[in-house]
Amino acid sequence: MVITESALRNFTQNIFLAMGCSPEHAALATDVLLLADLRGIDSHGVARLTGYVRLWEKQRINPRPDIKIVHETPTTATIDGDAGLGLVVAPFAMQVAIEKAEKYGSGWVSVRNSNHFGIAGYHALMAVEKDMIGFAMTNASPLVAPTFSNERMLGTNPMCYAFPAGKYPPVIVDMATSAAANGKLEIAQRLGKQVPEGWIQDKQGNYTTDPHALKTGGSLLPLGSDRDHGSHKGFGLSATVDILSAVLSGANYGPWVPPFVAFLDPSDNPVGKGIGHFVGAMRVDGFRPVDEFKANMDNWVSRFKSASPIDPTQKVIIPGEPELEAEIDRRKNGIPLVDAVANDLDELAKKLGVEGLVFS
Amino acid sequence: MVITESALRNFTQNIFLAMGCSPEHAALATDVLLLADLRGIDSHGVARLTGYVRLWEKQRINPRPDIKIVHETPTTATIDGDAGLGLVVAPFAMQVAIEKAEKYGSGWVSVRNSNHFGIAGYHALMAVEKDMIGFAMTNASPLVAPTFSNERMLGTNPMCYAFPAGKYPPVIVDMATSAAANGKLEIAQRLGKQVPEGWIQDKQGNYTTDPHALKTGGSLLPLGSDRDHGSHKGFGLSATVDILSAVLSGANYGPWVPPFVAFLDPSDNPVGKGIGHFVGAMRVDGFRPVDEFKANMDNWVSRFKSASPIDPTQKVIIPGEPELEAEIDRRKNGIPLVDAVANDLDELAKKLGVEGLVFS
Repeated sequence: MVITESALRNFTQNIFLAMGCSPEHAALATDVLLLADLRGIDSHGVARLTGYVRLWEKQRINPRPDIKIVHETPTTATIDGDAGLGLVVAPFAMQVAIEKAEKYGSGWVSVRNSNHFGIAGYHALMAVEKDMIGFAMTNASPLVAPTFSNERMLGTNPMCYAFPAGKYPPVIVDMATSAAANGKLEIAQRLGKQVPEGWIQDKQGNYTTDPHALKTGGSLLPLGSDRDHGSHKGFGLSATVDILSAVLSGANYGPWVPPFVAFLDPSDNPVGKGIGHFVGAMRVDGFRPVDEFKANMDNWVSRFKSASPIDPTQKVIIPGEPELEAEIDRRKNGIPLVDAVANDLDELAKKLGVEGLVFS
Repeated sequence: MVITESALRNFTQNIFLAMGCSPEHAALATDVLLLADLRGIDSHGVARLTGYVRLWEKQRINPRPDIKIVHETPTTATIDGDAGLGLVVAPFAMQVAIEKAEKYGSGWVSVRNSNHFGIAGYHALMAVEKDMIGFAMTNASPLVAPTFSNERMLGTNPMCYAFPAGKYPPVIVDMATSAAANGKLEIAQRLGKQVPEGWIQDKQGNYTTDPHALKTGGSLLPLGSDRDHGSHKGFGLSATVDILSAVLSGANYGPWVPPFVAFLDPSDNPVGKGIGHFVGAMRVDGFRPVDEFKANMDNWVSRFKSASPIDPTQKVIIPGEPELEAEIDRRKNGIPLVDAVANDLDELAKKLGVEGLVFS
């Protein structure tokens, strides 16, 4: 089932309006979610709508947040998201970072009291559009165990670095700091497939290939999978995201992060407010003229694209390239929805009294 | 063989003086190298002295550099290291970042025309001492292949994030973005041991456990080791380091980075000057009061230290903790040197006409 971008946009906007969001926030939240669907990151798009509604029903998401700067210097700020959708709080924060960068060269914003912010790439790309380098990260539901532990202490804590280029599309490194993102497990669960060794461990800390192990006390593994292959590095990256996003802002960190997933409940003893993000922007021309930078980025991309392939049919993939290809295709040809997601969305529409999905 | 810190410091300083460094630069370069030895990162300490001397003999290191800011805004700068030792260029850059952060909240410096800068942690810790969060990264000899390639395109490109804490030591995430650092291969080579699968591939792109494969056209693998386990993420992190350090500053990037290792020669067609670094500092009190941040860092550290261990004898390791333990021990009890390194250093001393190692 394929739906046009504009039909899915209308639908999604109506859901956010039914939650009580302002028209501006509904449009912005929709824009963030749709970019995930357009770019082929299906786990982070409208498939998550039921999750946002669930948290709103539990009064964990405030549809009319008063998002505020609570602390700042010329180039740094802390923002309180007032329990709003991360989908609107994070763009607000990035806008603040961009304005600071316009004046002083760079801007950095740590965010507390927020919720799931969609794909990190959306926020980082806001900076790229202004010829800046964009940074975006967030902490997330505790599902990942540190090296040597079988306790779920960290989220898949994604980090994104985005760089403008010239004739080539922006280079966008947008990655979970776990070996595999939870979305990949969900796909395996749906298909009844096993997952590779090195993605998850069971409750006792033994490798397992059962994607359902996460729901029975198991945990995702940090990037690197095991100590010999550098899982302490994945743990370190995840810790970095957690500290910048939450210890710095006053959000919940580590095992206290209020979970997005339905099978976990928030802590009774929070150490901060909501979840945390960290975003930043640096003007390219704070370092060298933009045209020089872009010419060298093009040379970088072109050289890496021509790196000798092991298999001649599989060339090196530049970070962000497959997502752009998906975006071009899906803007033109529509967005495929799997049946399970389409059914969920139609039920959601009924519950909230809005029009169901319209397939042309 | 164990040598006192002060004896090794004297020795190292004399070598740098014999290269023609100023007394200030000799002392600073020595301080950077020694911190690696003290903290147990033996691959990055005095074991590299012969490498620095080799590059100086080839006139690739300028012992009397005129290090200059060539471009800046209030919070960003590009520095030309004038082909100096990275051991002195990077601290200069971090000092600029710290001064900018003192005034405006944050400071970010990209560096070109430099050389190997020792451990990233030294530079990041300069910020931590000022109650700032420190960032330091560098590109390096092309030894790592991107996912799907068998061509050496990137360095082990380390990134370091360092955070002050209260009663606990600073949390320092300092890691190569490859599955294993080259230093680990060198240890295996010396001991005649095989390495785990997932660290390196041979010239054709097949996994190998032979640590010598790197010298016969093989390559190190990005963190994640293979596509299923996220090697594209390690590639993305390494690309991020390369772009921030070199595309942004005008240094050489990717396969053009002038190598430190003896078995590779610099490119005949450089795309920039020397190697590149990127350092940054953000004032903690640009986001929240320092005492609040440190109290929450202590809570973070203490909670992670008590995470349920898989094996009760192996608790979770906080990033930076083992290095601090080594530092306390070695400052008191001296620094162990393996015979091969001690012999190399004594030969170096003879060649440069300085006093050999003095063991008490």
